[in-house]
Amino acid sequence: MPETLIKVDLSQPAPTNEKVHNRWHPDIPMACWVKPGDDFILETYDWTGGFIQNNDSADDVRDVDLTTVHYLSGPVGVHGAEPGDLLVVDLLDIGAKDESQWGFNGFFSQKNGGGFLTDHYPHAQKSIWDFHGMFTTSRHIPGVKYAGLIHPGLIGTLPDHKMLEAWNAREQALIDTNPDGNLANPPWTATAHMGQLTGEARDKAAATGARTVPPREHGGNCDIKDLSRGAKVYFPVYVDGAGLSVGDLHFSQGDGEITFCGAIEMAGWVHMKVTLIKGGMAKYGIKNPIFKPSPIVPTYNDYVIFEGISVDESGKQYYLDVNVAYKQACLNAIEYLKKFGYSGAQAYSILGTAPVQGHISGVVDVPNACATLWLPTQIFDFDINPNAAGPIKHLDGSIDMPISYDLT
Amino acid sequence: MPETLIKVDLSQPAPTNEKVHNRWHPDIPMACWVKPGDDFILETYDWTGGFIQNNDSADDVRDVDLTTVHYLSGPVGVHGAEPGDLLVVDLLDIGAKDESQWGFNGFFSQKNGGGFLTDHYPHAQKSIWDFHGMFTTSRHIPGVKYAGLIHPGLIGTLPDHKMLEAWNAREQALIDTNPDGNLANPPWTATAHMGQLTGEARDKAAATGARTVPPREHGGNCDIKDLSRGAKVYFPVYVDGAGLSVGDLHFSQGDGEITFCGAIEMAGWVHMKVTLIKGGMAKYGIKNPIFKPSPIVPTYNDYVIFEGISVDESGKQYYLDVNVAYKQACLNAIEYLKKFGYSGAQAYSILGTAPVQGHISGVVDVPNACATLWLPTQIFDFDINPNAAGPIKHLDGSIDMPISYDLT
Amino acid sequence: MPETLIKVDLSQPAPTNEKVHNRWHPDIPMACWVKPGDDFILETYDWTGGFIQNNDSADDVRDVDLTTVHYLSGPVGVHGAEPGDLLVVDLLDIGAKDESQWGFNGFFSQKNGGGFLTDHYPHAQKSIWDFHGMFTTSRHIPGVKYAGLIHPGLIGTLPDHKMLEAWNAREQALIDTNPDGNLANPPWTATAHMGQLTGEARDKAAATGARTVPPREHGGNCDIKDLSRGAKVYFPVYVDGAGLSVGDLHFSQGDGEITFCGAIEMAGWVHMKVTLIKGGMAKYGIKNPIFKPSPIVPTYNDYVIFEGISVDESGKQYYLDVNVAYKQACLNAIEYLKKFGYSGAQAYSILGTAPVQGHISGVVDVPNACATLWLPTQIFDFDINPNAAGPIKHLDGSIDMPISYDLT
Amino acid sequence: MPETLIKVDLSQPAPTNEKVHNRWHPDIPMACWVKPGDDFILETYDWTGGFIQNNDSADDVRDVDLTTVHYLSGPVGVHGAEPGDLLVVDLLDIGAKDESQWGFNGFFSQKNGGGFLTDHYPHAQKSIWDFHGMFTTSRHIPGVKYAGLIHPGLIGTLPDHKMLEAWNAREQALIDTNPDGNLANPPWTATAHMGQLTGEARDKAAATGARTVPPREHGGNCDIKDLSRGAKVYFPVYVDGAGLSVGDLHFSQGDGEITFCGAIEMAGWVHMKVTLIKGGMAKYGIKNPIFKPSPIVPTYNDYVIFEGISVDESGKQYYLDVNVAYKQACLNAIEYLKKFGYSGAQAYSILGTAPVQGHISGVVDVPNACATLWLPTQIFDFDINPNAAGPIKHLDGSIDMPISYDLT
Repeated sequence: MPETLIKVDLSQPAPTNEKVHNRWHPDIPMACWVKPGDDFILETYDWTGGFIQNNDSADDVRDVDLTTVHYLSGPVGVHGAEPGDLLVVDLLDIGAKDESQWGFNGFFSQKNGGGFLTDHYPHAQKSIWDFHGMFTTSRHIPGVKYAGLIHPGLIGTLPDHKMLEAWNAREQALIDTNPDGNLANPPWTATAHMGQLTGEARDKAAATGARTVPPREHGGNCDIKDLSRGAKVYFPVYVDGAGLSVGDLHFSQGDGEITFCGAIEMAGWVHMKVTLIKGGMAKYGIKNPIFKPSPIVPTYNDYVIFEGISVDESGKQYYLDVNVAYKQACLNAIEYLKKFGYSGAQAYSILGTAPVQGHISGVVDVPNACATLWLPTQIFDFDINPNAAGPIKHLDGSIDMPISYDLT
Repeated sequence: MPETLIKVDLSQPAPTNEKVHNRWHPDIPMACWVKPGDDFILETYDWTGGFIQNNDSADDVRDVDLTTVHYLSGPVGVHGAEPGDLLVVDLLDIGAKDESQWGFNGFFSQKNGGGFLTDHYPHAQKSIWDFHGMFTTSRHIPGVKYAGLIHPGLIGTLPDHKMLEAWNAREQALIDTNPDGNLANPPWTATAHMGQLTGEARDKAAATGARTVPPREHGGNCDIKDLSRGAKVYFPVYVDGAGLSVGDLHFSQGDGEITFCGAIEMAGWVHMKVTLIKGGMAKYGIKNPIFKPSPIVPTYNDYVIFEGISVDESGKQYYLDVNVAYKQACLNAIEYLKKFGYSGAQAYSILGTAPVQGHISGVVDVPNACATLWLPTQIFDFDINPNAAGPIKHLDGSIDMPISYDLT
Repeated sequence: MPETLIKVDLSQPAPTNEKVHNRWHPDIPMACWVKPGDDFILETYDWTGGFIQNNDSADDVRDVDLTTVHYLSGPVGVHGAEPGDLLVVDLLDIGAKDESQWGFNGFFSQKNGGGFLTDHYPHAQKSIWDFHGMFTTSRHIPGVKYAGLIHPGLIGTLPDHKMLEAWNAREQALIDTNPDGNLANPPWTATAHMGQLTGEARDKAAATGARTVPPREHGGNCDIKDLSRGAKVYFPVYVDGAGLSVGDLHFSQGDGEITFCGAIEMAGWVHMKVTLIKGGMAKYGIKNPIFKPSPIVPTYNDYVIFEGISVDESGKQYYLDVNVAYKQACLNAIEYLKKFGYSGAQAYSILGTAPVQGHISGVVDVPNACATLWLPTQIFDFDINPNAAGPIKHLDGSIDMPISYDLT
Repeated sequence: MPETLIKVDLSQPAPTNEKVHNRWHPDIPMACWVKPGDDFILETYDWTGGFIQNNDSADDVRDVDLTTVHYLSGPVGVHGAEPGDLLVVDLLDIGAKDESQWGFNGFFSQKNGGGFLTDHYPHAQKSIWDFHGMFTTSRHIPGVKYAGLIHPGLIGTLPDHKMLEAWNAREQALIDTNPDGNLANPPWTATAHMGQLTGEARDKAAATGARTVPPREHGGNCDIKDLSRGAKVYFPVYVDGAGLSVGDLHFSQGDGEITFCGAIEMAGWVHMKVTLIKGGMAKYGIKNPIFKPSPIVPTYNDYVIFEGISVDESGKQYYLDVNVAYKQACLNAIEYLKKFGYSGAQAYSILGTAPVQGHISGVVDVPNACATLWLPTQIFDFDINPNAAGPIKHLDGSIDMPISYDLT
C-alpha cells in the first residue's frame, strides 16, 4: 500500500491534529510534501470532526457549531507546482475507516444552517447509514439500498493572498446587503484551526481565513457527487506547492446535496495521485476546476423523473429561477414517495443521499425555468413506477427519522 | 403504419392549418379524437412554422416575430379522459419529415428574445444542421457529429379555465414588477392561431390564450431533452378529452436549451400511443408531469466536466443562484473549446445542441451554488481531453456561423 | 432524403428483381455504383424473399425452400475500391418498410434446417412480431416488449475467384466427412439468382456461387446483433469496386440467433455511407471485418444471468466445448422462464429475439467450458428476478406459438 | 467492519492453513459456521497458494505444480441450508490484501497446462500488474490501464456424494477416450489439502476429492468476470450447511480467461453476505448457478470489435464450432494490436486481463459459427481506432513479457 501521509485518530479531537485545518489561507504551512507522480493516502475526519454520533437522537445535528467546520486533511505541498499550473489529482480510491463503517445524513434546524427545503422541514433530523461493503442502508429509512458513489465533498488548493482578499471582499459585500440574513459566513477567529500555525501567526491568519462552506475557484466545498473515486480532477494552482486539502467524505449523495447535513457523511481515507500540467490554466483557459468522471460508478439507468417549474408552492411566479424550479421538482418527488409510505422527512433524506440527478432542463423559456429530478428506481426494494392500479403502501410509518426540536 | 391524424404541408403557411394552434386555451376544439390504447402519428411544423430557412444568413433569426410561436399540432382528444386522470403518452418514435432532413440552431438578437448568454453573444446568429440518418453535422460548425436525441420541445395537455386564469394572473403579476423587462409574454391576439376557432369565438379565446413559451403544470414548452423518442410521459388532465398537443421537435439539444433559438429545430412527425391512469393525479400526488426516460438514447459516457459557481464574470457574489453558476460553467466550457479553434459562437452553439448535461451539483453551500456542465467528448472528431502537452488547434477559423446585426 | 439506389416491391417475387441476388460470386455485375463519401438507401426483401407470411400458421416455416435464401440487395460498386482496401460502411439508419411493419421468428423443422435446440423443439413453429415505432411485441408471446436493435443479419463484399474457390473447397471437404450430415450447403444452381446475369453467364456463375448461409472472411451472414444502426463496419475488399450487398434485416436478435428462423426477420431499408481506407487490410492486419458498435442501442442493463457448462443434458462430458455450454445455458434459461408461465417454445423464441447476450465466459478450465446467457429483465412486463417467495405464474398458457408438424 | 472468519498469512504455506482446501469433497469439515443474513469476510491466497512471485522471471509459471491448485477458503457452513435450497451470496466487496497490492498473469508452457492460444504461445511467460486503488497497470505491458473488475474466479458449494461420483465418473469417461490427452484432471491424492481432515479420513477423501479446475453444477471455477464485487449469486445447495468456499481472486479478466494463468491473479479478501431461498432449486428450475450482475462495474462502452469464424488459421473448415471462431477473433485482435507496437505475447495478455467481452454472435449459420471479441478502447493511453492514415506505432518493443523456455 502507498504511504499514509496524514493520519487521523477518531478518538482525538480534530483541532488537536496539526495536519488538519478548517479555514483556507495561504499562510497555513504544508502538512507534508510529495512529488509529481506520487500516490499516497490521506485520512480524514468527517466534516464535523466527529461531532455527529451513530445513535438515534438528532440533538447533535441540532446543536452543532457550524463555525467549526470543515475539518480538512492537508495542505499537501507538491514539489514544482507553481501558480498558473494545473494540479491533476487522480482519485484512485476512497473508503470509510475500518473502525467507522457508517455515515450520517440530516437536516439542520432552520435556526442553525437550514437546508434546501428548510421551510418544509425546519427541525433537526438525522438518519444513520450503515455500510455493507460497496452498499449502504439505513435503520431509519427502510426499503432502500444504494451502491456507493464515494467522493470527497470538499477538495481544493490553497488560494493566494490576492484571491483570498477577493473572496472575503465579495462575500462581505453580499452580507452587507442584509447583515442578518446569514447570506454568507465571514471569517471567524475563535474556532479557526490553522493547521501547524500557532500564536500570533495563527491569530493573524485566522482573522482572514476564508470559511470552508462555499465552493470557489480553487474547488473547495463543491459537493459534486461525480468527483467520485476513479475521477480525475484538474485544479488551478495559486501558490507554490499548490497546497491540496481534502475532507468531507461522502458515501453517496444526490445532486444538490439538498439536505445540507449533508450527504451520507463519513470519516475515511483518500488514495490519490498528483501530477502537473505546467502552465495549464492559460493553456486551457481554466478559471474553475474541470474534471473527468470515474469509469466505475453505479450503473443505475432506470428513473422516475420529476419536473419542476419556477412557480413556487404558493403559486408565485419567478423569472427563470432554477432554484425555485428544482425545489418544486424535489417537493413533487417527496409527495410521490409519500404515496408508498415514506414520511416526508424520509423522502427528503432519500433525495439528499441517493445518486439522484438534478438537471437544469430549460433555462430560457420565459418566465419559467424547468428543472428535473431523476430518482433511480433500482435503489428501492419495491416497484415505484406508476401504473394503472396505483401505488402500494409498502411502509407502515412505524419507523421514522429521529427529530430534535429547537431548544427555546 | 398507424394512421397520420394530423398532416402538415411545409409549403403552406402554418396558420392555414386548422389542426394547428399557437396558444393554450380550453376552448380550442379537438382537432381529432382517439381512444385509450390507440397509436397514431402527428406531423408538425418546426416551432416557427417554417420561418427559418436552410441558408447561410441569420437575417431570419434576427427578424422572426416571436408572437407567432409555437405552432403545435393538436389538440388530440382522448375518449374517456377526465380531469384528475393521468394521460400516459408513449413516444414510440419521432423523426424529421422526409423532405426536410435538416434543422437550425441560433441565437436571437438581444433585442428580440436573446438567450442564456445574450450579454456575450448579443447578435443574431444561425447554424444549419444536416441529418444523416440517426446523426447530424453542421456546415457551420466543423468537427462535431452527434447521434440524435430526438424529442419534442413542447408537448402538453389543455388547461381548464381556472388553470388558464391562474397562469395569466401570475405571469401578469411578474410583468407588472417591471413592465419593460420582457419578464413574460402576455396573451397577444393579433397573431394567435386558435385551431378551428373562427370569428368571435376565436377572438375571445385569443384574448386570453396563454402563450406557449414557458413550461407549466400541463407540460408545455419544457424543452427537456430526455423526453426523447422511447420515453413515456404522464400528463395531468384538466379537461374532458385531455387535449394533447405537440410540436417544436428537436433533433438534439443540451440541458437548458441555452441558445433559445433553440435546440436543433426541425419539422417532423411523432408516433405516439395514449393510455389513461384514471384518477392518477391524486393516486400519485402529481402536480407537474413525470416521465420515464427512453431505453434508447445515445450512450456517450465520457465527458469533460466544467464547474461554475454563483460569482458572475465581473466578480459579483450571488446567493446560491444556480442560474449564475450554470452560466459560469457554460462560459468556462466556451473558453476551453476556443483553445481547440472554435469561435465563441460555435462553442455556444455546441453547448445548445449537443447532448450536454447540466447538473445542479450543489445548492446549499452558502453563498455559492455549484453547477456542472458535462460536455461529451465522443461527439468530437478529435481529442478534447486535457493533457500535459496542451490543446491542439484543429480549426483555422475559416468557417463560422452567419451573423446578422440588428437593423437600426 | 438521400437517393434510394435499390428498390424492392414486396408484391413482386424477389427473383424478378435484377438488383437482388442470393449467391456470392465475383461475376455478379454491380447493381449500381457510388463514390466514397456518398450516402444512399438500399431497400431489401426479408431473407426468404417474402415467403413467410403474417398469419397464425407455421406451415410456411415448415415448407420454405432453404436453397432460395438469402435475397440480398446489391452488389453496390464503390469507385476506387481495390483489393486490399477496407470499405468503411456507416450504418446511418435502418428501418422496416412502411407497408410492412412486422417481422417473424420461428424454428425450422429438424428435417429442414433445424436450429440450436432442434433436439428439444423439432417442429416448425412461428411467432409474429408487430412493430410500434422503436418497439416490438408479439401476439404469440405475451408479456414482453423490446426496444429494437435493428441490424442487417447479412452484409458483405464480393469475394474474388480465389477466395470463392477456397470457400467451396473447404466446405466441400467438410461435407465429404459426412455427406448426409447437412454439414454445409454446396452451390445449388436451380434456385440461384445471380442479379443481372442471364443465360450461360448466369448458369456458369450459379454453378459455383457460394451459398449465403455462413459468415465468411468478407462478412456475409454474421448475424451479429451489434452491427446495428449507428455502427461502423470495416470490410475487406477483394474485387475492384468492392461489391457491397446487404439483406436479412432484423428488428432484434439475441446473441447466437439460436432460433435460426431467425431473429425478428423483416423487409426494410438501410441508409448507409461508404468510405475507403486505402490498403487498410495490410495496415491493420485485417482478415475478417472489424466494427465499432453503435452509440444508440437499447440501454438494458439489468439481467438474470444463466450459466452453462460443457456437460450435456444426458450428463455426458465434453472437452471445453462452448457450443455445449451455451446450449445448457439456454436450456437453463428456458426452464426458468417456464416457471413464470411461458411454454418452452415461447421461452426459446424470446432467447432468439430479445437482445440477449451470450458470453464465452471460461474456455480454459479443463474439461468444462463455461458460457453465460444474459437475459434482460427490463423487457418483461413483470418481475422475473428470483426471490424468497418464488416465481409467480403470469401466463395461463392460453396463448402459444403456432406449430406445424412435418408432413409424412 | 464485519468479522474476518478466515485469515490467511501469505508468509505461511497454504497447505498449513486448516481453513483452506484444494479439492471438492462432502467430507471436508466446515471451517466455520454462519447464519442466514450474516455478512463476514474471508481472506484468500492467490490460486497457487503464493507460488508465483512478483519478479521478472517466468520460471515460476513454467514450474508450477498444477495438482496443488486452487487454494480455497472455506467451506463456510450456513445454518439451516438444506439440499434443494438456493444459497444467495451477495458479494459486498472484494479487494487485494494490503500487503500484496499486485497480481500476475501468464501463459503456461504447452507441456504444463497450456492455454487457449498455446499453439501460438507455447512457452511460459508472465506479466506483473500493480494495483493503484481501483486501477491496474503492468511494468511488462505499457500503454494500458484498467479499472478493476474484481471477482472470485472460483466460488461454489460442496457437492454431495452422489454428485461427486457423477463428476468423477463423467470426467474419467472423457479421460478414457484419450488417456494421454490431458482432457481432464482426475483426483490426485498426494497434493490434496482437505482442510481440517487428517489421517485416514483425509486420505480417503483425498482419493476421490474432485479437482478444482473445472466449473461444475455447484459453481466452482467458472472464471466469469461478471461475478464481480456487487454481484448477487444463487448457488444450488447439495449438503446440509451448503459449504461455501471461495478463492482464485482476480483483479480483472477478459471473457474466456484465455491466458489460463490466468486473469490478473491475486491474494485478497471477500466481504459477503449469505441468505437462503428455501426449496429454491425446484421453485426456479435451477441446475447451475444463476446471478445478477453488479451495479458498479467499469463503464467502458467504446470498443473495436473483432469477428472470427470457425475456419482455423490453416484454412480448415469446422462445423459451427464456437471455440474455433473465438480463437480466430482473438488472433485477429492480436494481429491488430501488433500494428501499434505490442508483441504478440503482450497483446495476448491484454486479451486475457482486460475487461474484454467474448460474444457467441452466431451459432446456427452452417457451417460457420461467428464469435466476436470486444476490445475496449478506453483502456489504452493512445487511440487504437482505425482511420485512413493507418496505425501509429506507440511502442518500440524495448519492453516485453519475461519468457522461460521449457527445461529439457
